[in-house]
Amino acid sequence: MTETKSALEAGRKIVAILNPDLEGQLSEKYDGLVSDFAETLVEWGYGRHYARPGLDLKTRQLCTISALTVLGGQTAPQLKINIRHTLAAGATRTEVIEAIWQMAVYGGLPAAINGLNAAQELFDEMDQAA
Amino acid sequence: MTETKSALEAGRKIVAILNPDLEGQLSEKYDGLVSDFAETLVEWGYGRHYARPGLDLKTRQLCTISALTVLGGQTAPQLKINIRHTLAAGATRTEVIEAIWQMAVYGGLPAAINGLNAAQELFDEMDQAA
Amino acid sequence: MTETKSALEAGRKIVAILNPDLEGQLSEKYDGLVSDFAETLVEWGYGRHYARPGLDLKTRQLCTISALTVLGGQTAPQLKINIRHTLAAGATRTEVIEAIWQMAVYGGLPAAINGLNAAQELFDEMDQAA
Amino acid sequence: MTETKSALEAGRKIVAILNPDLEGQLSEKYDGLVSDFAETLVEWGYGRHYARPGLDLKTRQLCTISALTVLGGQTAPQLKINIRHTLAAGATRTEVIEAIWQMAVYGGLPAAINGLNAAQELFDEMDQAA
Amino acid sequence: MTETKSALEAGRKIVAILNPDLEGQLSEKYDGLVSDFAETLVEWGYGRHYARPGLDLKTRQLCTISALTVLGGQTAPQLKINIRHTLAAGATRTEVIEAIWQMAVYGGLPAAINGLNAAQELFDEMDQAA
Amino acid sequence: MTETKSALEAGRKIVAILNPDLEGQLSEKYDGLVSDFAETLVEWGYGRHYARPGLDLKTRQLCTISALTVLGGQTAPQLKINIRHTLAAGATRTEVIEAIWQMAVYGGLPAAINGLNAAQELFDEMDQAA
Repeated sequence: MTETKSALEAGRKIVAILNPDLEGQLSEKYDGLVSDFAETLVEWGYGRHYARPGLDLKTRQLCTISALTVLGGQTAPQLKINIRHTLAAGATRTEVIEAIWQMAVYGGLPAAINGLNAAQELFDEMDQAA
Repeated sequence: MTETKSALEAGRKIVAILNPDLEGQLSEKYDGLVSDFAETLVEWGYGRHYARPGLDLKTRQLCTISALTVLGGQTAPQLKINIRHTLAAGATRTEVIEAIWQMAVYGGLPAAINGLNAAQELFDEMDQAA
Repeated sequence: MTETKSALEAGRKIVAILNPDLEGQLSEKYDGLVSDFAETLVEWGYGRHYARPGLDLKTRQLCTISALTVLGGQTAPQLKINIRHTLAAGATRTEVIEAIWQMAVYGGLPAAINGLNAAQELFDEMDQAA
Repeated sequence: MTETKSALEAGRKIVAILNPDLEGQLSEKYDGLVSDFAETLVEWGYGRHYARPGLDLKTRQLCTISALTVLGGQTAPQLKINIRHTLAAGATRTEVIEAIWQMAVYGGLPAAINGLNAAQELFDEMDQAA
Repeated sequence: MTETKSALEAGRKIVAILNPDLEGQLSEKYDGLVSDFAETLVEWGYGRHYARPGLDLKTRQLCTISALTVLGGQTAPQLKINIRHTLAAGATRTEVIEAIWQMAVYGGLPAAINGLNAAQELFDEMDQAA
Repeated sequence: MTETKSALEAGRKIVAILNPDLEGQLSEKYDGLVSDFAETLVEWGYGRHYARPGLDLKTRQLCTISALTVLGGQTAPQLKINIRHTLAAGATRTEVIEAIWQMAVYGGLPAAINGLNAAQELFDEMDQAA
């Protein structure tokens, strides 16, 4: 089915920009639990959403940062991964911080502060690795 | 205090772009319950957040759309108001829809579908008013 | 079992203060779905929690108002019932509004605004019934 | 790509059991906003999840009822649709009510009560249509 | 009061199946903070919910797994305990994983992934202890 | 602008009671990410909310404890800080525990148990420091 095939392919093209190792890492970590985990995630998350026309990749990633911030503590690991992706999509650290801090208005101060903490941790990790 | 004064003023400048009637409407509706409601909201939400440098107003609004979508049903009224603001900030309806639908990945399908419903209702209201 | 019996009885004493019709109304509405709904709710909610020593009833109710506010839209009906209970426990309307509005800091502005809306609706209903 | 094609096909087989009109209804309502909405939902939700081996369809649906209950008010429309699907998968009304009411322990009483309300509304609609 | 007495007793019968040490462990850990914590939890959670007729214990536990997954990170410790209980109620590891992964549809990918992480950690602990 | 200036000043008066080091600590930790973080938080959170008339400081803090409890795991660090503030506002440890445990009714057992865990950790830290 041509159309569906391109969803997975389109997802892989986005992942190649954001985080080329993602599918392999997810496959190694989760395919033992859920047989097609990595492929499904790339197809659905990236092929069916990020690959859509109508909104540029950098803005999509900043929207994700804001959403993960208001979702709160359950998403701290995902927030850090997505901050990396957002920087890879061309955003600055300042834009990331702004997309987090603005969420104090919508998700409350605790969610925003925990988002800032996650960003700070990631920036420190990146600076130490550099 | 000059600095704080400009927070309220800076907030009012943003509101003038997004929704010039907002402070008056909020004041009429809520200041009887909370004496300085409208002024505080403009100062904190718009002066201390949207007015900050580092991220453009349209992207800020799209981030808000995504966050309100994943926060779910409690924010449907705020989502509709903010979709109006997002269009006023220069976004297209397509960009708004994309910022909502992508949230299926992070907040689940029910939250994304309810976000689409709110957007459709607002678009219908706007088209009927036009 | 003496101790457990008093949990239901202790709950009924609290309910007699807050809302004497509560158990009957809940029984009529829900016992057809869940056989012991009303009794269980009075025993658990009021007998095992509100009836405990260590915190006065009015403060317990104000804490509940704040919690229902940050839980968001799913709890609007419960928020209105509990505002009635909070007034019955001796709180003023102003205290109720303050317990709601402060939640803007912790649960975000949408949750707090929706809480204010629920309170305003209830106050209007009470004033029209008076 | 054979494998992915079968995800959509497998999803359609499940939907044929639960609610044969679902894809058409979703397509009519949402494909104007999101071009491949209905197909994507069937592929991802039903093909990539409900169609998986390892857990029977009725239990999957009861798990969904419980999850929608604790997610709270944002999911009331989805809860009603999924109660229909759960009955179609062979569950009794009693099993549905139990899957909702047990959630008082995990999501709190307001979420459970709102879930019971949604179930009662649906049962009334079904009985009136019968 | 016979009826209420049997709630606690009925709860203890369920706990004897799922986790015989539970009440003692909870009592040791929490009764210093909340005097009747363990007894109340067994009475309310297990006696008033799990002990009810109308839904079998294994399905009840799988519903709990799904609910804790969508509730997100706040419930990771409870998720691990309840996975143990679910296995004790006769479910397979595969059924547990399916009840978690399906929640990607309703609670979003981050919640489902964090649920898979908790399950993997527990399975590793169980395998090392074996 | 006299009125707004007093919001920051009024906030600082409250912080002087609850936690004199708070603004300095927040400034050191977060002002590098968000230039006016500490000042804004004191102005908005304490000056615009806690400093308001109509509800006493101790009750405000107990309301915050309950709200942070039902918000769940994302707010554990904020819960511990606010328990300290609540004790500084004159509440007893028992009152704090009651404001947490009652939330089992509204936010479910996992949220309440995690709140008790945070309180126990803080009490242990305070006793070891004493």
